[in-house]
Amino acid sequence: MSVGLNGRADWIAVDWGTSRLRAWAMSEAGAVLGEAVSELGMGKLARGEFEPTLLTLIAPWLDRPAVPVLACGMVGARQGWREVPYVPVPTQPRALQPHAVTGTAASIRLAILPGLSQEKPADVMRGEETQIAGFLVAQPDFDGVICLPGTHSKWVRVSAGEVVSFQTFMSGELFSLLSQSSVLQHSIAQQGRDEAAFSEAVAETLSRPERVAHALFGIRADAVLNNLDPVTARSRLSGLLIGAELAASRPYWLGQDVAVIGAEDLTETYAAALSSQGLAPSQHDGSAIARLGLAAVYATLSETAS
Amino acid sequence: MSVGLNGRADWIAVDWGTSRLRAWAMSEAGAVLGEAVSELGMGKLARGEFEPTLLTLIAPWLDRPAVPVLACGMVGARQGWREVPYVPVPTQPRALQPHAVTGTAASIRLAILPGLSQEKPADVMRGEETQIAGFLVAQPDFDGVICLPGTHSKWVRVSAGEVVSFQTFMSGELFSLLSQSSVLQHSIAQQGRDEAAFSEAVAETLSRPERVAHALFGIRADAVLNNLDPVTARSRLSGLLIGAELAASRPYWLGQDVAVIGAEDLTETYAAALSSQGLAPSQHDGSAIARLGLAAVYATLSETAS
Repeated sequence: MSVGLNGRADWIAVDWGTSRLRAWAMSEAGAVLGEAVSELGMGKLARGEFEPTLLTLIAPWLDRPAVPVLACGMVGARQGWREVPYVPVPTQPRALQPHAVTGTAASIRLAILPGLSQEKPADVMRGEETQIAGFLVAQPDFDGVICLPGTHSKWVRVSAGEVVSFQTFMSGELFSLLSQSSVLQHSIAQQGRDEAAFSEAVAETLSRPERVAHALFGIRADAVLNNLDPVTARSRLSGLLIGAELAASRPYWLGQDVAVIGAEDLTETYAAALSSQGLAPSQHDGSAIARLGLAAVYATLSETAS
Repeated sequence: MSVGLNGRADWIAVDWGTSRLRAWAMSEAGAVLGEAVSELGMGKLARGEFEPTLLTLIAPWLDRPAVPVLACGMVGARQGWREVPYVPVPTQPRALQPHAVTGTAASIRLAILPGLSQEKPADVMRGEETQIAGFLVAQPDFDGVICLPGTHSKWVRVSAGEVVSFQTFMSGELFSLLSQSSVLQHSIAQQGRDEAAFSEAVAETLSRPERVAHALFGIRADAVLNNLDPVTARSRLSGLLIGAELAASRPYWLGQDVAVIGAEDLTETYAAALSSQGLAPSQHDGSAIARLGLAAVYATLSETAS
């Protein structure tokens, strides 16, 4: 999918995650001139396939040599196009220095942003740091916690423009594995939401997180014995996992100003869970905010260069 | 694999689970005359494939029409050969009544044992009830808890020859999914044990079960940042999941006499975890004890018939 180009691209912003590649034709001032999306995320590509994949997607915008391309996300992982070392926290996401990638086609001048690492407890992120940079453009004085749900959800403490610490949870991947590949697959609808079942499950594991492993099989037993509705089962699974995540991340969000950044269905889900705990989280579109982050870093580079 | 037949089979005992089929040629008195094993568990068979699979495996023992075959396990599930309704707890596993299956080949006279169900919290088992019946042959007055680790581990309260209540955990299936299909697969060895890492992980989630979801991703981060040894990673994953299971099943095992029944590597693992909590669990081979259970039920039937 490619949305047409309204004018010459001064540079190209690229958000390349595990499951998706998204590119924008940008003006120097940070306006969006065009957008292109591909499902060819890092997880589906071998090392040699990154360059042709990107060049094909952004071909309409390459009207001269060495068009600047600034990319973030798993494209910089060990299994990505070029490994870019992590920057340890605490650090300012808006001041991250992209690494120039040499040896590419002459039509682009590629740079990849680093991810962040934390020494203890050991943790890593790639891509979310750029979303946080984008968030800080609009709220530079934000002091609180940013929650970025996804395959691996992140909880991030932000203060004075810095990422102070963060914590990653596998709830999203667990949900996929359990709903698609475990004994629960026969009991769970592919979509649909039962708000009451979701809230009840969140409350259950938030107060008694140790119950998760048993409550999971309870979905199967309830389906076998009581014909549990598959949509209810889906919401219950989601709620059990998110409740357990909230129990573990409580030191992060309790009494804090919380912003949730991600895909709309996920931010809705997490915001609902947090609201049930008396919080009033703000919600932000992950894709748009990643683009803002790339533009913020690009602007810093241009200032430095000039 | 078929171990030769030393004499005529009076009847045939069959333990048919999700992942394996095991049959024994038995004497009236309960002696084992032969044994045959197949990897064709219920999970690999369509409904019409059960009968030919069994007949092929036990063909050498079918020297006359209507040889009695007594089976337990997932063979009686909805997706099995013939669905046999659950018997609700509390109940005596040694007194379970097998259901005759009609319409089979004339060479066998098949009966399948029911599984057990629990209304609240909803839970089900198939196969473990027969292992418990076998355990009670040797220890009829056992008053305590039986732990049956596996894909879905069971914790079972037993008193006065009855299963009083039970609880199922998905730890085994979670271990398989996480170690083989999640982002952790690249960080985890296919075998090997690091006892210290295992014990440390058990202690971590036993005391702080809510940490599981985060600690899981920590294995990945530790591998990326610190080249965590893959065998250590494997033991850590196992310990985190079993520690969380022990935290949730604490009301079952705390201060109780505990028996662990299952495959040797699993009973070793669970016994080690329980021992670290000051318990002295006994360990029993799951396959042998299932055969004892089938023989105990068969003996009861013979008594009733005579």
